Amino acid sequence: MYLTQTLRRSAQRRKNDTVLICGEKSLNWSEFEQRCSRLAAGLVAAGLQADDRVAMLSHNCAEYFEFSFAVPWAGGVIVPLNNRLGSDELHYIMEDSGARMLIADSHFKGVIDGFLAKLPSLEQIIYFDPDNTDSDYETLIEQHQPLEDQQRGYEDIAGILYTSGTTGRPKGAVLSHRNLIANSMGSSLNFGFNEDTVYLHAAPLFHSSGASRVYSMIAAGTTNIILPTFDVPTLLASIEQHRVTSLLLVPTMINRLVHHEDLHKYDLSSLINIGYGASPMPQTVLKKALKELPEVAFCQAYGMTELSPAATFLEARYHVLEGPDAGRLASCGQAVFNADIRIVDEQGQPLADGEIGEIAVKGPMVMQGYWQNPQATAEAIRDGWMHTGDAAYRDDAGFFFMVDRIKDLVISGGENISSVEVENCIYQLEAVSECAVFGIPHVDWIESVHAEVVIKPGQHITEAEVISHCKSQMTSFKCPRSVVIREQALPVSGAGKIMKNELRKPYWQDNERKTD
Amino acid sequence: MYLTQTLRRSAQRRKNDTVLICGEKSLNWSEFEQRCSRLAAGLVAAGLQADDRVAMLSHNCAEYFEFSFAVPWAGGVIVPLNNRLGSDELHYIMEDSGARMLIADSHFKGVIDGFLAKLPSLEQIIYFDPDNTDSDYETLIEQHQPLEDQQRGYEDIAGILYTSGTTGRPKGAVLSHRNLIANSMGSSLNFGFNEDTVYLHAAPLFHSSGASRVYSMIAAGTTNIILPTFDVPTLLASIEQHRVTSLLLVPTMINRLVHHEDLHKYDLSSLINIGYGASPMPQTVLKKALKELPEVAFCQAYGMTELSPAATFLEARYHVLEGPDAGRLASCGQAVFNADIRIVDEQGQPLADGEIGEIAVKGPMVMQGYWQNPQATAEAIRDGWMHTGDAAYRDDAGFFFMVDRIKDLVISGGENISSVEVENCIYQLEAVSECAVFGIPHVDWIESVHAEVVIKPGQHITEAEVISHCKSQMTSFKCPRSVVIREQALPVSGAGKIMKNELRKPYWQDNERKTD
Repeated sequence: MYLTQTLRRSAQRRKNDTVLICGEKSLNWSEFEQRCSRLAAGLVAAGLQADDRVAMLSHNCAEYFEFSFAVPWAGGVIVPLNNRLGSDELHYIMEDSGARMLIADSHFKGVIDGFLAKLPSLEQIIYFDPDNTDSDYETLIEQHQPLEDQQRGYEDIAGILYTSGTTGRPKGAVLSHRNLIANSMGSSLNFGFNEDTVYLHAAPLFHSSGASRVYSMIAAGTTNIILPTFDVPTLLASIEQHRVTSLLLVPTMINRLVHHEDLHKYDLSSLINIGYGASPMPQTVLKKALKELPEVAFCQAYGMTELSPAATFLEARYHVLEGPDAGRLASCGQAVFNADIRIVDEQGQPLADGEIGEIAVKGPMVMQGYWQNPQATAEAIRDGWMHTGDAAYRDDAGFFFMVDRIKDLVISGGENISSVEVENCIYQLEAVSECAVFGIPHVDWIESVHAEVVIKPGQHITEAEVISHCKSQMTSFKCPRSVVIREQALPVSGAGKIMKNELRKPYWQDNERKTD
Repeated sequence: MYLTQTLRRSAQRRKNDTVLICGEKSLNWSEFEQRCSRLAAGLVAAGLQADDRVAMLSHNCAEYFEFSFAVPWAGGVIVPLNNRLGSDELHYIMEDSGARMLIADSHFKGVIDGFLAKLPSLEQIIYFDPDNTDSDYETLIEQHQPLEDQQRGYEDIAGILYTSGTTGRPKGAVLSHRNLIANSMGSSLNFGFNEDTVYLHAAPLFHSSGASRVYSMIAAGTTNIILPTFDVPTLLASIEQHRVTSLLLVPTMINRLVHHEDLHKYDLSSLINIGYGASPMPQTVLKKALKELPEVAFCQAYGMTELSPAATFLEARYHVLEGPDAGRLASCGQAVFNADIRIVDEQGQPLADGEIGEIAVKGPMVMQGYWQNPQATAEAIRDGWMHTGDAAYRDDAGFFFMVDRIKDLVISGGENISSVEVENCIYQLEAVSECAVFGIPHVDWIESVHAEVVIKPGQHITEAEVISHCKSQMTSFKCPRSVVIREQALPVSGAGKIMKNELRKPYWQDNERKTD
């Protein structure tokens, strides 16, 4: 159970077949294995020791695959960096992870120079240029004979993947070889990946969903098409040119794809399935996708970096608009092969079908913990159960339905109320441009439902109108008891999310709220 | 990564669907889960503690599935007993495993009474009758409320499965939850088992191949048809009646199936694949099977109890008689998903493609060791590599070709010679009824190829004729240098295998041969 074995096995089976295509560049399996083992030798020659962290900063490229296997081959640990971050954030992650080496696309030299001086722990930067073979990186590969596989595996650390929390510093999720291989086997089971698969990597390879797919695809022996960055025309042309069978997209990418004017100008008949996840899919987008691409099997995976990343899977057969399974389109699916999933209350006790609580996951996909952060680890993983922070209920066939982030649930009079559900109801009002629903202190019910509503310029609505609209649509206990109508926008985070913790603060000054 | 999670997950998804059919008996998933958790409670009430061994003696039956999950649910370890063994051998295994409890079909009471008095470690026998609900077993299930799953998993021991060596006492292969789950995921990947699969259990459930399929099928959520014992007409009728899609057979079963006069009187159109393994498949049988059942995907798995059990897999696409892949029908396949497989020399060093050596396997399927037998464990597992004792070579696409048991290889003048290949050549001679080829001491070559040949009654052949026939068919160095023509049969083991070690002895009295 080690990642390098999956490469050696696939390379032995597929030798002269193509494994990677990125623009004009193409590699076969023997070349790819050779390059990984030579790069591994180069890293060791440069001083890499067991468990040393090696970071990577680039767009999607063939070198990302080489990094992903050369580092464990040499006994090291990968740290993929989000290429959208600025120098300060990158500096934080480099310092926190203690990376001794950095492999980087030379186009990122500017941002790297921004933190280099403040980073004594970084000993070596190996630059490459995806469009040019004259580089430190290529020299390293040329000058070294293949290293013997160090055969790191099982509980050895394979990677540290940083999560981008809405509050606080990013935390490094420590993923073992076992974690990533459990995900690889699971995704092959769910999607049927095999040597006939032609997979297009459009989502960023530094995210857990993209990074884990690198390992899944090499293990499954697929052909891999890599898009450096996402744009719809290139995506469509690549599917047609390479007869792509499978890809993973985030909902915003699917949205742009299915609404693109040239969608039907390309031959997309090779497509078998499209996986999606990472953020909730608006039902209207999904319905449009099913209508525009009726031959494609859409499948949803829910998860998070800490779960390597998949925990649930919604099969293609449940992506239907009619019939007995139609309601399941709103679900994020059922537990994947090795996942034990519970809905638990605040004390971690399992709840019954239909009750809303926190999703907790146990199994070989649960990360080892947060890098050098025992306190955050202890809060997240309790008795082997990863507490996701996501609120959901489970139906009687084991389908999970997400309702909210746990910290955004309103717990009023013993009822768990989804703030998202109330917000969706308020958004039906024409005059509303933004809203946020959260709990405020209540002497009897502990919390009561409160809404902050931003009205569109020139429009008008009253507190009573908001409440009465909600009462006409929802059970009484879910309706806001208080509403603030405001004209200024709600506070948002860097990632564009409404910061409810900021909105909550004034109401809770004298009451500590546990989940913030 | 624990076996009980796979049951709970499938039961949650499939609730009222049928999971087990054995004769007139049928259980749905909710009932099955209930019965397992109640039986687990009964075992704990009867004194079962963590890691205690519980043995099982019966024909194939629904109770075997309950045993397989109730015992780990309660925190125990399964010890499936070969129901073809006599009292003495069963006594040895019961004593060696230290089983405190035995679940048994009451039809086996006679054989159990034969060893009961000599077995103080056995505290409890729970009898059941597959055809009658009036039993200790059913009372135990009725009288107990479901136990909370003890959630044993990962490296915890799930079972001890005894191997039947041709020499010496049986050894208990210690298999962990991880071992068996690695196999379950692998078999679902290879065979495509899922909730649409209707699987027929015809091979004995006490063997590693049958026992591991119990876990694979429950994890994959299949419908399971159980045949108490194997006979071809019942097999054919069951396939037709239950629309069976998949089954596993040993070569002798396939031989009887494809030659049965009623083969085409049944509707076998539901069959998708038939796996086979456990012993080498004669090419004539395989070719007959492909001809008689052209719509069925035949797939081969090679392995052994110590590998939980599968290590290689030959896909259906290589089961062809013509075209570029035709030669692969003689292979036992390529490494399964998580298996790292090498051909190694006597020092454990990897050999190149095409060279004959011992198959060594590393990965999550390698057993923890032999039960309470550190010496045998140290001989078998070296540096994480399970040394299988099987001799093979690998071609340049990673297909493995078995040639012999390692200890039966003749190593002469630096060449590894397959005794099986030489025997097959000698068997071409009309006059030969039996033969055995092995190495005898040679002053220069270390060993020379020797044959013991039994002639058919009334036939005649000379030593020179045997040698000259071989020289006409094979490279010179493989041909016997000495032949003994004999009229009496060769010595065979209880399992019907020719005991070459007995034949070798007189030649090696003054020379110690390492591998015996």
